[in-house]
Parts: sequence; C-alpha cells; structure tokens
Amino acid sequence: MKIALIGAGNVAWHLAQALQEAGHEVVAVYSRTAAHSEELAHRLPGAIPLASLDLSGSQAELILMAVPDAALAGVAHTLQVPAGAIVAHTSGSQPLAVLQGIPGARTGVFYPLQTFSKSKQMNFSVVPVLLEAEDEQTLRTLQGVAASITGEVHVVDSDKRKQLHLAAVFACNFTNHLLGISQRILQQAELPRTLLQPLIRETIDKAEKHPPFQVQTGPAVRHDQNVIQEHLRMLQQHPAYQELYLQLTQSIQQQASDNTSE
Amino acid sequence: MKIALIGAGNVAWHLAQALQEAGHEVVAVYSRTAAHSEELAHRLPGAIPLASLDLSGSQAELILMAVPDAALAGVAHTLQVPAGAIVAHTSGSQPLAVLQGIPGARTGVFYPLQTFSKSKQMNFSVVPVLLEAEDEQTLRTLQGVAASITGEVHVVDSDKRKQLHLAAVFACNFTNHLLGISQRILQQAELPRTLLQPLIRETIDKAEKHPPFQVQTGPAVRHDQNVIQEHLRMLQQHPAYQELYLQLTQSIQQQASDNTSE
Repeated sequence: MKIALIGAGNVAWHLAQALQEAGHEVVAVYSRTAAHSEELAHRLPGAIPLASLDLSGSQAELILMAVPDAALAGVAHTLQVPAGAIVAHTSGSQPLAVLQGIPGARTGVFYPLQTFSKSKQMNFSVVPVLLEAEDEQTLRTLQGVAASITGEVHVVDSDKRKQLHLAAVFACNFTNHLLGISQRILQQAELPRTLLQPLIRETIDKAEKHPPFQVQTGPAVRHDQNVIQEHLRMLQQHPAYQELYLQLTQSIQQQASDNTSE
Repeated sequence: MKIALIGAGNVAWHLAQALQEAGHEVVAVYSRTAAHSEELAHRLPGAIPLASLDLSGSQAELILMAVPDAALAGVAHTLQVPAGAIVAHTSGSQPLAVLQGIPGARTGVFYPLQTFSKSKQMNFSVVPVLLEAEDEQTLRTLQGVAASITGEVHVVDSDKRKQLHLAAVFACNFTNHLLGISQRILQQAELPRTLLQPLIRETIDKAEKHPPFQVQTGPAVRHDQNVIQEHLRMLQQHPAYQELYLQLTQSIQQQASDNTSE
C-alpha cells in the first residue's frame, strides 16, 4: 500500500519503519519542520519530503497523521488528499470526528498503544493497534494494514479509546514518574539504580496475574504509621514527593477499605 | 546451617523454601499464630513448630526474624537464643540496632528486596539480599548464607537500607496502586486488561535503560491542557483518582521544569 505520513516524531518514525518492513511503500513525509521531514524521508527509500499539506497530487492511498493532539484539527482543516484516500490519525485521546470535513477522504483511527522513543528499537509485532473507521470498507483496509505489522489488532470506538488512553496515562506516564522518583532517591543515597529492577519486574509480573488491588503490599496497606511517618520525614527536602507519598498512601488505604466492604 | 524462622508470613515462607533448597536445615518455626507455625513447619521436613520465643534449647545457629516492623522490638525483647547464635531481621526500614539486647546473640540484617506472595513461585536466585552485621565475622556468615540462595548479595548500612526501602515503596507499592487504577478504568470500559501489558513492559524496559525523568511522555509533560482537563472530567466519579491524577501531573510538570533549569 502507498502511504504518506504527516508528522515526523516518535510515532511516525516507528510506524514508518514497521510499515516499510512489512512491504508497504512510504511515498511521502510531511512535518511542520522541514528538517524533520527530510530526516525521516531520508531513512525511507522512495519517500519524498513534502513542503505543504496539499497531498492531492500524490499517490498516497493511506495518509497517517501522527501529530500532537492539539495540532490534529488544524492539520485536518488544511489537508488536501487524493479522492478516496483514507486519512487516519494515531491519537488515543481524540475522536474519529476530529477528521470530519477533509474533502474526498475516508476517515479512520490507527492508534498504536505504545510509548515510543526514537533512540529505542521496538518490536512492533506485539504492539496493540486500535482501529476505528467511518465505514466498513475503510475499517477492513485499516485492519489489513494493521495486521501486516502486528498480531494485536483491536477495533475500539472513540469513547472506549479515550478510556484506554486514560488508563495508559496511569499505567505508563505516571508509573514512569514514580520510577524516576525512586531512582532519584537511590541516586541520592549513592545506591546502584539496578538494585530495584528485580522488585519492579516482579511487581509487573504480579499485576499481570492478579488484580493489583488484591495483592497490594507495603506500609500504606498495612497502616504501618511508624514507617509512613519516617518516610514523610525523609522526604522533607522534596515537598512534591512528600505530597505524592501522602496522596498515594491515602488512596491505597481508601481502596483497601473499599475492597473490604465490597 | 541450622536455621530457625520467627514469623510465618510471605517472607518467611519464601525464605524457608529457598534456604532448604540450598541445603540448609530449617529446624524450627515460630509464629504468634500457632496454626501458621504448624502450617509452615509442615512444609519443611525436619522443622518443628515452636510455642514460645524461648529458642535457647534449640540447635539453631541462625535465627531469621521475618515479622512485621511494628512487632520487631517486642519480639527482640522476648527472644531467647543459644549463646553465640546469629539473630538477623529481614526488614528494609528497621535499623540493626532494634535487635540490641538479645542475650548472647550476634546481630545482623538479612533483607531480601522483593515483594512476596505465598501464591506465587519465586526465582530467589535473582533477588537482591541486603546485609548488615554488628561485626565482621557475623557479616561473613550472613554473606555465606545469602550467597547460597542468590547471586545478588549487597552490604548496606541501616541508613542506606532505609532510603532503599523508601525508593522501593515508590517503585513497587505505589506503582502497583497505579496499575490497579488503570485496570479498574479498563474494566469499567469493558476493555481487556491485557491490552496495556506491552505498554507497561516497555515503560519498565525503558526505565532500566534511560533515566525515567528524561524519557517522560504523556499529556502532563506536553502540557496538553485539553487532554488533562478531559481526563479530570472523566474521573469525576472517582475523586481520589482525580486528585492523584492532578498531583502526579503537577509533579511531572515540576520535574520537567527542574530538568530544564538544571
């Protein structure tokens, strides 16, 4: 399939590579920043960097929009595509409807549920791709493209995708922040940051096998006030971490009491 | 080595099994709850359940105290051991000094840095064990025992162990709570809870290879106010989750601004 990419960030970068490896042809790349279009196009044999959002003269059959959520509506408003081409965005939080009004386009969503960094290789074949489309034919085409790069293809409507994105913020973005705080504490104690890795891996393994609320451990769920007070004292130099510690402890205790009364 | 266990909870359970597999002899088990001592002793050929903390007549050379932090001082106050026996506790947050005053004992700490559940098998050989002792000879003995069950033996003093324990609360207990919230959101949206697993695994992988604060992604670090406001609205039915979302978002933004000014 002939594909054009709008956007040259982390998502576009990994998608382009996976699509090309699956035998698709990335024919064009557009980024607001010309240097970025050129850099990505340069890595994709046959792709040309575009200077505008007028793709009406291109051969693209599928246009994937991997741009920041806040930019989506603006890009959709400007975009010109070949008649009958599919335009799909890659956002977890934006509805399908944000693409309404692109002349001659069939619209869909192609949301890869993963956290991407350019510096890190990615095994795309296990990344869930969540699809939505304005009609059955468009959905089937997107299913074909998704199935060519991953074994995890799901059809999910805009409202559920938004819930999923919220769940992902807790499981990924917020978890990453806690891991950062934990590494900062290790660093300040001059302890190797690898020390906690087996514990973190076990925490994740356990959460896959058991409902996390039911296997909660630690001072909060034990109501171990001595330890909790000492930890809060140790965090005095970091009021933001202290506040988080308190909120998370209260939330764990609240949850445990809800579990008991359920 | 002849070992007695005080406590019959998750830590005692897993330690006993690993020690016995390594060829040590667990000779006795004490728990405040007689049924628990009996249950654990029953699983350990040769071990007898004890009815009191008077171990002075036992053959134990090493007494491991795997009891709740709040119970440690009380148990230490009552415990009687054979002259010259080593008494070590398994707590991350309690100092070595909590064992002071046990007549005839040499004291130490034997802290396995892991989250244990009885229902889940554990590969102990990758679990870091953190040691401390009142003298070199005791430390060497504990090192020998630890090295017989794991490849990860570390000597860490009470103050650093306490910091490590605090870091573990963020990385394990708090992370588990966030994973629980995330699964609750999936459940309420009737989405399969396996959907987020690749994302969670990638988050952890990334945090092992890069400092998490430097690879933070998501609406908070992008200051994507539309998405943040929408997420807060979606959490209206869960004020505790809403409050956590807000605190974590602010902490991520604060951290990012500190990173920039560093």
